[in-house]
Amino acid sequence: MASYLITGTGRGIGLELVRTLAAKPASEVSKIFAAHRTKTDALTELVSSSGGRVEAVPMDVTDEESIKQAARQVEKSLAGKGLDVLVNNAGVLPITEGGIEKMTDLESVFRTNVTSVHWVTTALLPLLEKGSLKKIVNVSSTVGSMGFVDYTRHLSCPAYKVSKYALNMLTVQWAQALEDRGFIVYVISPGWVKTDLGGPAADLTLAQAIPAIEEVVLRQNKEDNGRFLDVVMPGFEPRYTNRFPPW
Amino acid sequence: MASYLITGTGRGIGLELVRTLAAKPASEVSKIFAAHRTKTDALTELVSSSGGRVEAVPMDVTDEESIKQAARQVEKSLAGKGLDVLVNNAGVLPITEGGIEKMTDLESVFRTNVTSVHWVTTALLPLLEKGSLKKIVNVSSTVGSMGFVDYTRHLSCPAYKVSKYALNMLTVQWAQALEDRGFIVYVISPGWVKTDLGGPAADLTLAQAIPAIEEVVLRQNKEDNGRFLDVVMPGFEPRYTNRFPPW
Ligand SMILES: NC(=O)c1ccc[n+]([C@@H]2O[C@H](COP(=O)([O-])OP(=O)(O)OC[C@H]3O[C@@H](n4cnc5c(N)ncnc54)[C@H](OP(=O)(O)O)[C@@H]3O)[C@@H](O)[C@H]2O)c1
Ligand SMILES: NC(=O)c1ccc[n+]([C@@H]2O[C@H](COP(=O)([O-])OP(=O)(O)OC[C@H]3O[C@@H](n4cnc5c(N)ncnc54)[C@H](OP(=O)(O)O)[C@@H]3O)[C@@H](O)[C@H]2O)c1
Repeated sequence: MASYLITGTGRGIGLELVRTLAAKPASEVSKIFAAHRTKTDALTELVSSSGGRVEAVPMDVTDEESIKQAARQVEKSLAGKGLDVLVNNAGVLPITEGGIEKMTDLESVFRTNVTSVHWVTTALLPLLEKGSLKKIVNVSSTVGSMGFVDYTRHLSCPAYKVSKYALNMLTVQWAQALEDRGFIVYVISPGWVKTDLGGPAADLTLAQAIPAIEEVVLRQNKEDNGRFLDVVMPGFEPRYTNRFPPW
Repeated sequence: MASYLITGTGRGIGLELVRTLAAKPASEVSKIFAAHRTKTDALTELVSSSGGRVEAVPMDVTDEESIKQAARQVEKSLAGKGLDVLVNNAGVLPITEGGIEKMTDLESVFRTNVTSVHWVTTALLPLLEKGSLKKIVNVSSTVGSMGFVDYTRHLSCPAYKVSKYALNMLTVQWAQALEDRGFIVYVISPGWVKTDLGGPAADLTLAQAIPAIEEVVLRQNKEDNGRFLDVVMPGFEPRYTNRFPPW
């Protein structure tokens, strides 16, 4: 009987996560707020076939007013109940031609990938406090890991790397602040997945990745508070064998 | 015969670093560009007593135009020569009353502590390429270390922690990009020093800290490229014994 809000659900991982949760029995998943900037046909279909369990919520995560408006819609819809789980999934990965010397999008990428998470979390906190699971899952990436900088060196997305690295520290700050109130706040890496963002060369199709992403999102362990968790996927060794990637 | 540009030199660590370098023989230090937002009496005095070796350069690091203007002044003053060392020292540490839930300065602190470094580095890169030492030292803090989050938990400066953590990743991106061109780019932690920012409870007076800060700034080791270096100070054990703090 848990309720979820997921950001960036018009396409990619966010959309598939909504689809997976909507396929679960109502006794497990009572409501999914599908926050989106672009309302795609796929999301519209999911909403209409969900019998009211999936509710589309317009939200541009770079616009604090839009987030507050969305929070009001969610509050109204929950009619006094709390929100159980927030998944901050929306994100962008722009390629910087010419490398860091040519980087002009550091602040805009930081806004979309980091400030957004702070704003959405702050706006939904009163509803999450009333929830019973009290969980916040932020979607980061091992592309932003300091431990992997040698492996990711060829990827020309410096603003993305800095932003996901910063998101990890932001998440730990939230985890520390909310721990005493029973919250579980952590970052995950979803694996390298064939989406618009991940590109066609990625390791995993969405269909392959979603069960592992679902597992890491649905965990309910106090010990995960403040952690960075990777998907674990048997059959893809040597990748996706390590639950705890380096920061 | 090296030339330096240091940001944030009106007071604190930046000012003392200028004073220390200015006390060295001209055969070691040819020129110090003292970039400042606020021209304090102390800096004015240093400039006038330096016989032309210390040049004050107005620079608000949060204002890209101001940085470009400063770069033009430095270029003119160097008259065809290169700049050897850039020290990105300017920074702010605002306390967030009420903790991360009340944090509204994430982006402004990111601008001052991170974007600034990117802008200053980009603007001065052509002059640094002409320099012979090719060194960029970014002043970070172990308060922004993931490895120390338990120790720093009581410090209510979430935006500072996120910003210094992000600065470390930004620095590594620059280090990777410039390595092949003979650059050495690294982050340092200057120790906990009694300045306006460090506060009166800090471990070290400026006079105590400056020799160790000078040592870590003046190193010229290729292996330091992309590293995070702490000051090492005998006599302050168990603090300041570890050259390599956790990221
Ligand atoms: N795919 C991978 O391999 C991979 C790996 C590691 C981490 N991740 C992370 O996983 C998350 C989802 O990525 P994905 O692969 O599903 O990417 P995607 O297919 O490109 O989808 C990105 C989603 O984020 C939304 N979004 C972007 N900016 C937004 C904004 N300002 N306001 C609201 N929504 C916004 C997009 O909405 P619009 O349709 O309106 O643009 C879209 O729904 C991201 O945080 C990404 O960094 C992905
Ligand atoms: N003190 C410590 O214990 C400690 C520990 C770890 C790291 N650090 C780092 O060391 C660096 C220097 O700190 P400090 O202790 O010397 O601090 P401080 O005494 O407060 O001095 C800060 C300096 O940064 C300048 N600054 C701030 N915003 C600026 C802007 N927008 N444009 C240009 N200059 C700006 C200030 O100029 P104005 O006078 O115009 O404000 C001042 O010169 C910082 O990066 C800090 O994070 C310090």
